Amino acid sequence: MGVGDVSKRILLGRKLRSSQLGETLLPKRIALPVFASDALSSVAYAPDEVFIMLSLAGASAYMWSWKIAIAVAIVMAAVIASYRQTVHAYPSGGGDYEVATVNLGPQAGTTVASALLVDYILTVAVSISSGAQYAASAIPALSGHEATFGSLLVLLLMAMNLRGIRESGSFFAAPTYLFMVAILGMCGIGLFQLFTGNLPRVESADLTITPEPGLEGPLTTFALLFLLARAFSSGCAALTGVEAISNGVPAFKRPKSKNAATTLLLLGMIAISMMVSVIVLARQMGLKYVDPHDLDRLTRDGQALPADYDQHTVIAQIAEAVFRDFPPGFYLVVTVTGIILVLAANTAFNGFPVLGSILANDGFAPRALGSRGDRLAYSNGIVFLAVMAIVLILAFDAETTRLIQLYIVGVFVSFNLSQLGMIRHWTRLLQTERDPAERRRMVRSRLINAIGLSFTAVVLVIVLVTKFLAGAWITILAMIFFYALMRAIRGHYDKVSAELAADEEDRVMPTRVHAIVLVSKLHKPTLRALAFAKATRPNVLEGIYVSVDPVATDKLLAEWDERKMDVPLKVLHSPYRELVRPIVEYATEIRRSNPRGVVAVYIPEYVVGRWWEQLLHNQTALVLKGRLLFTPGVMVTSVPYQLRSSQIARERQLSDDFRVRPGDLRRGQVDERHPDELRR
Amino acid sequence: MGVGDVSKRILLGRKLRSSQLGETLLPKRIALPVFASDALSSVAYAPDEVFIMLSLAGASAYMWSWKIAIAVAIVMAAVIASYRQTVHAYPSGGGDYEVATVNLGPQAGTTVASALLVDYILTVAVSISSGAQYAASAIPALSGHEATFGSLLVLLLMAMNLRGIRESGSFFAAPTYLFMVAILGMCGIGLFQLFTGNLPRVESADLTITPEPGLEGPLTTFALLFLLARAFSSGCAALTGVEAISNGVPAFKRPKSKNAATTLLLLGMIAISMMVSVIVLARQMGLKYVDPHDLDRLTRDGQALPADYDQHTVIAQIAEAVFRDFPPGFYLVVTVTGIILVLAANTAFNGFPVLGSILANDGFAPRALGSRGDRLAYSNGIVFLAVMAIVLILAFDAETTRLIQLYIVGVFVSFNLSQLGMIRHWTRLLQTERDPAERRRMVRSRLINAIGLSFTAVVLVIVLVTKFLAGAWITILAMIFFYALMRAIRGHYDKVSAELAADEEDRVMPTRVHAIVLVSKLHKPTLRALAFAKATRPNVLEGIYVSVDPVATDKLLAEWDERKMDVPLKVLHSPYRELVRPIVEYATEIRRSNPRGVVAVYIPEYVVGRWWEQLLHNQTALVLKGRLLFTPGVMVTSVPYQLRSSQIARERQLSDDFRVRPGDLRRGQVDERHPDELRR
Repeated sequence: MGVGDVSKRILLGRKLRSSQLGETLLPKRIALPVFASDALSSVAYAPDEVFIMLSLAGASAYMWSWKIAIAVAIVMAAVIASYRQTVHAYPSGGGDYEVATVNLGPQAGTTVASALLVDYILTVAVSISSGAQYAASAIPALSGHEATFGSLLVLLLMAMNLRGIRESGSFFAAPTYLFMVAILGMCGIGLFQLFTGNLPRVESADLTITPEPGLEGPLTTFALLFLLARAFSSGCAALTGVEAISNGVPAFKRPKSKNAATTLLLLGMIAISMMVSVIVLARQMGLKYVDPHDLDRLTRDGQALPADYDQHTVIAQIAEAVFRDFPPGFYLVVTVTGIILVLAANTAFNGFPVLGSILANDGFAPRALGSRGDRLAYSNGIVFLAVMAIVLILAFDAETTRLIQLYIVGVFVSFNLSQLGMIRHWTRLLQTERDPAERRRMVRSRLINAIGLSFTAVVLVIVLVTKFLAGAWITILAMIFFYALMRAIRGHYDKVSAELAADEEDRVMPTRVHAIVLVSKLHKPTLRALAFAKATRPNVLEGIYVSVDPVATDKLLAEWDERKMDVPLKVLHSPYRELVRPIVEYATEIRRSNPRGVVAVYIPEYVVGRWWEQLLHNQTALVLKGRLLFTPGVMVTSVPYQLRSSQIARERQLSDDFRVRPGDLRRGQVDERHPDELRR
Repeated sequence: MGVGDVSKRILLGRKLRSSQLGETLLPKRIALPVFASDALSSVAYAPDEVFIMLSLAGASAYMWSWKIAIAVAIVMAAVIASYRQTVHAYPSGGGDYEVATVNLGPQAGTTVASALLVDYILTVAVSISSGAQYAASAIPALSGHEATFGSLLVLLLMAMNLRGIRESGSFFAAPTYLFMVAILGMCGIGLFQLFTGNLPRVESADLTITPEPGLEGPLTTFALLFLLARAFSSGCAALTGVEAISNGVPAFKRPKSKNAATTLLLLGMIAISMMVSVIVLARQMGLKYVDPHDLDRLTRDGQALPADYDQHTVIAQIAEAVFRDFPPGFYLVVTVTGIILVLAANTAFNGFPVLGSILANDGFAPRALGSRGDRLAYSNGIVFLAVMAIVLILAFDAETTRLIQLYIVGVFVSFNLSQLGMIRHWTRLLQTERDPAERRRMVRSRLINAIGLSFTAVVLVIVLVTKFLAGAWITILAMIFFYALMRAIRGHYDKVSAELAADEEDRVMPTRVHAIVLVSKLHKPTLRALAFAKATRPNVLEGIYVSVDPVATDKLLAEWDERKMDVPLKVLHSPYRELVRPIVEYATEIRRSNPRGVVAVYIPEYVVGRWWEQLLHNQTALVLKGRLLFTPGVMVTSVPYQLRSSQIARERQLSDDFRVRPGDLRRGQVDERHPDELRR
């Protein structure tokens, strides 16, 4: 080991061999924050939406808030229980998509995939919009500029993910645990104050809510039911993100499924406690909360509020009241809530490529997404996600309340298909399983999934009924679009595959090889190409020179003779300074005169390393190779000659290989080897 | 000939063979409009600038206007006479750049080239700005939006040139001749009215010009001289564009040089008549014209003008007065003047790539610019020109008066170096020439060029003195930048060339060829690649499969056995779904174990035709080829398999070959063959 190696090792840390990879898998205490940020962050906006919906009938309707919280908690418990079955049955990380595809067929799988795609976009839009609201409640100067600020945040996330940030456990652990401590701590203090009778009132406690026209008096049963259904379906936004763990099983330490199931249970309990506590506390502290568009429905002592009244989010109001004598507590809660929302958005940037690569492997997305090596494909996906999210944020002016109407349709479509798939899964297994203990376990699992399905089906119907006109139709249109796109891509791949299927005649060997070496000058690359071409012992070998200038042509011919080249040189005249067309025409000509032979075109290329050097070179070779690909019976050989500066590009490529790509952590694919190892 | 061919021939016109190309060369009557628009269009703004400069000392200074016109005319005559020598001596179309390079060395040549590059940008900016002013004088709604309108015009020209419009003779002939008729007709009518004593007054005739502070009283001799020098140097803008013919000699019909010289003479006479007539008429009709920024210096009967007073260009004012009883005449003059200005700007879009290809062939610009086939390079040049012109138009708010300060420095730098080069040229020829008649002719030519040089040198000094601070410094900075860039590009090419220079050891043939064929599936492209690779009889031949999924791997291995493939298949395991790195590593490994051999990598590729199909395929092959180019001792062979849809791309490429590119007409390179001919 040289001195350089030693110093590098000191600087860059111990290298891990590929076989040591197990060490980088996630223990539960790290996996929880990695996969929890999306699910937990919804406590930052789901309670607000419940109160907004109930406020339509005035503050008296808030008496229903804790019942709605319980209903959402029950549904969440059922869903969590269902997904615990899924992580045991499908530990490969395919999640809902895999469950639906395997058990219900590719059409159900594609439906789930399109729902998930739309959902990733909405996760970014909703989380960032809500995060921008929290930022505005801590920094008053941001008020009114939430959409701009949110778009900038999305651009920042995009840039970080394009650069390839290492989504590491520690990256998530600190803020997520801090968030749990802050929210649960705040709720704990608040509940303690409640029981000791010292509970403070929130800033909006002395306000009065004017009900919406038509909802003033005692409500009809139907109107009440519809109102509660709307509040409930908005509250179900708290369920988004619980499926993340089922996509991340491969990243867990062994026993993977068991650890994933335990983590899921933990996540569910924390999420439910947070949501129920926040809703109960808010109600007890006298919160009055309306749609930000309807601030004129809030009055104080019969007077309209001042025009600059700023309605703070539910958690911000509770934190302000609980920590009234300790402002750092307020800022801690608001700050970590904002951070967790940004982390939740980042989750989508990591989940999107994972889903893309799974779809690519099944032929529903461009193949390039399936290979880790294709940086361009990754980048396109990330840019697409960011652009779509920004469009939504700007179109809906970063208003969480309006975006949430679009949000949970997709989640519940995939919940439903996934539960249905799991029921089929157990039914199928039960047909062959004979062991009674095992059968009992399966029947129990099937029951859990059936309960889950019945809950999520009811929610989906409620969501569709209450939200279709409010915005869910946009989601459904987008899902149909993605569905059609994926089917079309798959159709194309199938068509190509059929056209490419091998039959016997394809094994016929060409009768002769006519090799031509392109000559532009008599320099090292040309000599190397001639030598390599000669080494393949073709039936005919000749150099080809495209002449655009008689003086240069004569000079080359003289040099050719002088060097006693043992390969004939053919000159093609090109009066219009074209280089590409004469060569393509000549190759076509050779092939035409001998249709069973093959033309081997050798192109000497010298390669340089810096981007501006690449602008100055090789354009013609690139164009020519592109053209010859479309010429039947021709094979094109690049004979590279590496100039000294090409070393720069080689090293850049090597370090690029080891760059972490979004989603790697979730797939358990973190390779800690260092480029040096390959450079030997 | 099939029915299809006949109908195509009817639709698309008679095909011309390459040998019939002579027919598309330009007769004088077409060449004049093609090359004249730039030079003639300056009559649209040069007189205005003369009057603006003189107005600084009040309307009394206008008594100098016709003398300045005569001075400019004399310089123009001298320059025209000089260029008539150039077109005889250098008929290849290299123009000033060639003259300077051959006679004064590459540094002078590069200086001329950088001057011309800057000038092309300014031609677009000045012509379009002036055109926007004419448009505003006919369409009052455009007033105040000249910069936006001008930028849109540049974008339109850019789009047309990117599409590849056919710059044909008829495209130029009609508007240019109409312009000549309109302006000369207007001047003729005006002069007739002058002699019959019926000359009308222009709209600004009853205004009074307040001189600039400091220039009110009788001027000192020095102040007067400086004022006249400024007016004269602005008037010299009329000389821009006369050099265009010297770059276009190859496009003329035989005898090329003689026809070009005659056309140049005609052009000079027309330009001089127009300019002198306009200036004389304007003065006689009582024109008052000031810098558009100084409109407050114009008064009527001691009263300030209304705030919305719109000062129309000189030609517009004359036309308005001459055609006061016949408004269509006014609109004709203004419209054709606007059109000729846009054509002049288009001239730069055509001249820029011509210069680029000449520079590329000498190694001063990226090589790609030198080959007609490279559409990308052409496009980049056109976009660059348009963007720079738009930046200038917006920065100077489309004010011709301010842009003109930057304009003519470049022109006169190249005039001077070119004249100096011509003098050297004749001196050199005289050293060997013995025929007395020929010697007399040469001495006379040298005298003409010497007179030209003395005039243009004086003008250059005047321009530098009067305009340096007013904006010429920007031009000079830009010239220095382009100069340095061109030298750097040439330096890079020279360095690469030295590194590539051949020596004897390069002829050593590789001792053995180890061929590997990349296998992804056992389909037609793979079978073809295996057959082609086998046909080259390598020392070792093996298939390589990168395994990312054990199930797919087993399936392939089984199929390989079943089909009794006679080539061994090697499986490389890739736990991270990478495709590229394992192959690069394997190739490096083979090469390392046998450093004198060569690794031949065969990549089966299927090619599709539509752009969206290309997005779905071949990404990995592209990345892999890029990577292997940087791996020493490897040659990379693409074995294409053309799918049915690839025919679409092939036809698109063929028709692209025949697309006319900007500048083709000027180079005499219009190939009228039709793609069908190649499609046999």
